[in-house]
Amino acid sequence: MNFRSDNIFGCPAAVLDAIARVNETPTHPYGNDPVTARLNPRYSEVFEHEAYVFPVSSGTAANGLSLAAVTPPWGVVFCHRLAHIVRDEWCAPEFFTGGARLLAVEGPDARLDPARLEAQVRLTTHAGRPSTVSVTEATEAGTVYALDELRAIVDVARRHGLQVHMDGARFANALVSLGCSPADLSWRLGVDALSFGATKNGTLTAEGVVVFRKDLAEDVAHRRKRAGQVSSKMRFLSAQLEAYLADDLWLANARAANDAARRLGEGLLAAGIELAAPVQANLVFPRVPAALRDALRARGFEFLDWPALGGDVVRLVCGFATPASHVDALIAACR
Amino acid sequence: MNFRSDNIFGCPAAVLDAIARVNETPTHPYGNDPVTARLNPRYSEVFEHEAYVFPVSSGTAANGLSLAAVTPPWGVVFCHRLAHIVRDEWCAPEFFTGGARLLAVEGPDARLDPARLEAQVRLTTHAGRPSTVSVTEATEAGTVYALDELRAIVDVARRHGLQVHMDGARFANALVSLGCSPADLSWRLGVDALSFGATKNGTLTAEGVVVFRKDLAEDVAHRRKRAGQVSSKMRFLSAQLEAYLADDLWLANARAANDAARRLGEGLLAAGIELAAPVQANLVFPRVPAALRDALRARGFEFLDWPALGGDVVRLVCGFATPASHVDALIAACR
Amino acid sequence: MNFRSDNIFGCPAAVLDAIARVNETPTHPYGNDPVTARLNPRYSEVFEHEAYVFPVSSGTAANGLSLAAVTPPWGVVFCHRLAHIVRDEWCAPEFFTGGARLLAVEGPDARLDPARLEAQVRLTTHAGRPSTVSVTEATEAGTVYALDELRAIVDVARRHGLQVHMDGARFANALVSLGCSPADLSWRLGVDALSFGATKNGTLTAEGVVVFRKDLAEDVAHRRKRAGQVSSKMRFLSAQLEAYLADDLWLANARAANDAARRLGEGLLAAGIELAAPVQANLVFPRVPAALRDALRARGFEFLDWPALGGDVVRLVCGFATPASHVDALIAACR
Amino acid sequence: MNFRSDNIFGCPAAVLDAIARVNETPTHPYGNDPVTARLNPRYSEVFEHEAYVFPVSSGTAANGLSLAAVTPPWGVVFCHRLAHIVRDEWCAPEFFTGGARLLAVEGPDARLDPARLEAQVRLTTHAGRPSTVSVTEATEAGTVYALDELRAIVDVARRHGLQVHMDGARFANALVSLGCSPADLSWRLGVDALSFGATKNGTLTAEGVVVFRKDLAEDVAHRRKRAGQVSSKMRFLSAQLEAYLADDLWLANARAANDAARRLGEGLLAAGIELAAPVQANLVFPRVPAALRDALRARGFEFLDWPALGGDVVRLVCGFATPASHVDALIAACR
Repeated sequence: MNFRSDNIFGCPAAVLDAIARVNETPTHPYGNDPVTARLNPRYSEVFEHEAYVFPVSSGTAANGLSLAAVTPPWGVVFCHRLAHIVRDEWCAPEFFTGGARLLAVEGPDARLDPARLEAQVRLTTHAGRPSTVSVTEATEAGTVYALDELRAIVDVARRHGLQVHMDGARFANALVSLGCSPADLSWRLGVDALSFGATKNGTLTAEGVVVFRKDLAEDVAHRRKRAGQVSSKMRFLSAQLEAYLADDLWLANARAANDAARRLGEGLLAAGIELAAPVQANLVFPRVPAALRDALRARGFEFLDWPALGGDVVRLVCGFATPASHVDALIAACR
Repeated sequence: MNFRSDNIFGCPAAVLDAIARVNETPTHPYGNDPVTARLNPRYSEVFEHEAYVFPVSSGTAANGLSLAAVTPPWGVVFCHRLAHIVRDEWCAPEFFTGGARLLAVEGPDARLDPARLEAQVRLTTHAGRPSTVSVTEATEAGTVYALDELRAIVDVARRHGLQVHMDGARFANALVSLGCSPADLSWRLGVDALSFGATKNGTLTAEGVVVFRKDLAEDVAHRRKRAGQVSSKMRFLSAQLEAYLADDLWLANARAANDAARRLGEGLLAAGIELAAPVQANLVFPRVPAALRDALRARGFEFLDWPALGGDVVRLVCGFATPASHVDALIAACR
Repeated sequence: MNFRSDNIFGCPAAVLDAIARVNETPTHPYGNDPVTARLNPRYSEVFEHEAYVFPVSSGTAANGLSLAAVTPPWGVVFCHRLAHIVRDEWCAPEFFTGGARLLAVEGPDARLDPARLEAQVRLTTHAGRPSTVSVTEATEAGTVYALDELRAIVDVARRHGLQVHMDGARFANALVSLGCSPADLSWRLGVDALSFGATKNGTLTAEGVVVFRKDLAEDVAHRRKRAGQVSSKMRFLSAQLEAYLADDLWLANARAANDAARRLGEGLLAAGIELAAPVQANLVFPRVPAALRDALRARGFEFLDWPALGGDVVRLVCGFATPASHVDALIAACR
Repeated sequence: MNFRSDNIFGCPAAVLDAIARVNETPTHPYGNDPVTARLNPRYSEVFEHEAYVFPVSSGTAANGLSLAAVTPPWGVVFCHRLAHIVRDEWCAPEFFTGGARLLAVEGPDARLDPARLEAQVRLTTHAGRPSTVSVTEATEAGTVYALDELRAIVDVARRHGLQVHMDGARFANALVSLGCSPADLSWRLGVDALSFGATKNGTLTAEGVVVFRKDLAEDVAHRRKRAGQVSSKMRFLSAQLEAYLADDLWLANARAANDAARRLGEGLLAAGIELAAPVQANLVFPRVPAALRDALRARGFEFLDWPALGGDVVRLVCGFATPASHVDALIAACR
């Protein structure tokens, strides 16, 4: 019973079918194929705005390319101390941007605090040029910024002439949590570049970089080629993204994951276990004493320790395919 | 009837089946899964030598990472003027190496000439540090270096302290053309880093970087993370590579492609059409007058003009799934 | 009366004379001249150890090159939050290292705290590879690490396999403050690469990168060329460094600056003004109420506000040529 | 008697005096000083156009920064095969641009041939984005492009949307050779970024980057900081450049060097020695048989072999301070 990561699951049948279907007919390589041709219109429809999507092979690549599109090599990117880009990507942001600086800011529950953000921007005078704010939605602590919280952050950004990047590794989870539209959670807020996560929520090897302006799209196009992210058989990435969006599969998947997490969180609370952060997406961070942790693992539950949120905290991830029985079993085991 | 590229085809059923099979069971992400765990042993077996393989998402990424592993940022990489790395990769080699220089050398049929190579190495005194020779096997002109031709190049490299990189985008095609073993065509020759091409010959989205020494493997591991090439669901790349090697599928595929190309080349010669380069792998470069080119395209044949080999030259690519009937039809149309 | 920076002064007559003397005779360019040839032996003598010095044109270049020599592009450099490399160099460390990460650590009086340093190193698992500790001696707060404080930091570094860089922008000020030898404050401690500051203390345009091992020297040599830091008339930089060391000019200059600062600090304390950090080198950081600040500026005293050490703190810098009368006047004005 | 390089000489008395004068008065660092403040107006006057000059410490830095200002990291820079940027700078252009490609083009006497240039630009489709043409004036072969020759090159650039960089390491030598104005040889032609060489012709450690548009100036300002090229005591570079321009010292120096070279060239021709390129600036490239070469060296003449222009060619450089007697002696020795 595996609660380690959203990445432990593969993909729903619809995504695999889409790959198989594309496999039937030879076509032009490097994205000059009918499936890829349908992507920009489809994303423009989903986002209710001119949108350009670039299928890439990993979330780190999506973050690197989208950050680089809005940050010069001497730029400073402000992000939360727990952001994936600053904690988990092995200097990839520096690689893709050509040497920009990440500057970590504090805030409760992995959310940037606008006042602290603004203070940091003001203090940044000679370290590099304040250029970009990167927000993660949903956050690494399983919380979800409310739209007005994001607006407050974007306000800080705009006041200081900064661009806004959103790491949407769990964008769908945030969407269904907020009950808002993709447009509400992106360009309408002022997001300039979006890492459109899909792998954690139902594709195999496809993520997207999404931008809403033609000039940024041209920049991303150059950077994607140079970074070895133009897949020769791009249609197999495109097909995954297309199937992911079709019939609101992505939202259904995210809803399933979020529901499982909420049920798990409630069950743990009922069992007297504290949570280190509220459950607003598909992640649960309970405080679990060492003895209980060992006992759970002995019974076959897999999960990671998460000291970033406290010495006794573990991370439980629910995915689109987490069985209800696993959630029940985990709650029962904690009682 | 599409002769544009090896990348127009998808994958054989065995590869798709392998993906579907891996999709059935949740497992650890980021390559900590049983399929990926089998890869290094499998490659070591295939190459009859300690080998480390890193699944990546594109040939450009494979080239960039493997070049970077053997070239410092101030290094000079010597390659043929027609090499993919110098003609087609949008400055990706510079990106991955952190700014190394590519220096193009001439030679007949897209093959490096050892004497000219050595002359160029000697002339390179202040441009950067001569560091690496990159050979493409099979070449961009559809020719295949004989083993002793490669040995002569490696000799030059060794005399000047250079590392050897092989762009093996069509490694399998070269193998079956030469009838030698993977070991013969790599470490036994002195190849330090190999871009192990697979996509053109039967995978969907998986290429490999292969190195034969632990220190290089550690370096590649760091670079791969930083380049966003650690797939979170790496098992789906690994499964493709595993299926590609299983039951000598890769060799069978390459043989089919080479055979089709040879038959096509012979048919064209018999039809009185000259070839700009001998057919030794799966590419055919006939000289086709403009009128005939137009006529062929009007009849539904797709192919690219290839002025790099002469003003009237076109490129015809046979893949593992090119139908014999298409080859026959093209020959007939040329008569 | 200017207390803004050590860089407001030019150079002592001996340095200018050395430049003029070198100007008399044509000689080979790019460092192949007799003055530059004398530098490595001279530095080896001063440091009582095989030493390699590379004259460069700025402290930022010295830091960038020396950090890059000991840090891979995916490396993490740990430094104090107030370190010049992380606060003041416009992403130059990222540029020179090819994208390494700087990670700021806290500690009192701009000194790294070994325990916090170790905690940060341990927490750095996926952000990048912990590679380097950078210490600034004397610090940006005008304090000087005691030798055993540095030893404790180097111990942490060694336990975790990290290299040690010292930003010695005010190396001479630290030396005379501690009364130890250049060897004591560098290789004997375990410093791998030293930014040998000279401009602040008496040269015009010459700083040095100093390393103590031949392999590092070769690496720096490559990087220096590539960074445009091989001056065609390098002898004019070399002559400055030679004159700076001759007759212990550097130590005399640093002593003068430190003495002035100490006297200034004592005078301010006697005048009832608090200091935000102890005066151990040539910098004084008094807490000065806004009204007094304005009054001092109105009387012609120039200095910078220094909010990094507290809202009401200003920075007073004494240089090798600060007139005693200016110090007296400032103390008097504060009374 | 040293004919190795223009860099064997130091500076005229006026330049040294300017340094000494600046040394007398403490002032603000990092270019916030009165001397530096005078530079932009002075260059704007000299160039008869809004101009921004950035004093830097080497010609390689000047080239790197100015190329980077007009070339994206995926851009291709077209230059002559003998250009300093492609032959002599240890991958610095790649370093400063973040990985752009240099593409060498042929042409007689180190001059780009517009037709070949255009052909190369057209052939560059996937290697990177054609971005920049770099011309060297005067060239590495001692020739000087006529203004209409440069116009033809700029025409090619403009037709293909490329920017124009001029490596003016010997800009003054070209100016006096052509008898035209700085404006004629730069922005009036369409030069976007100029490496304004000064060290070879009379400064000690100061070169300039000159651009003619505010947006480029802002870009250069960021890049210069990041590259460690903001000298803390910048006034000592600025003073060199100011003195270099004052009273047309730069033109007088260049005229002296060119005259010496012309006299030397004529003397050699009269002595029956062939020249590999016409003498149009301060460089002479005679074909000298090995025996004569040895004899000359035995008599104390110093010069470099220059095989790039032919197996028996040597390079003789006249500088602003080359004694007439040395020229006479060399001619006599060749007779």
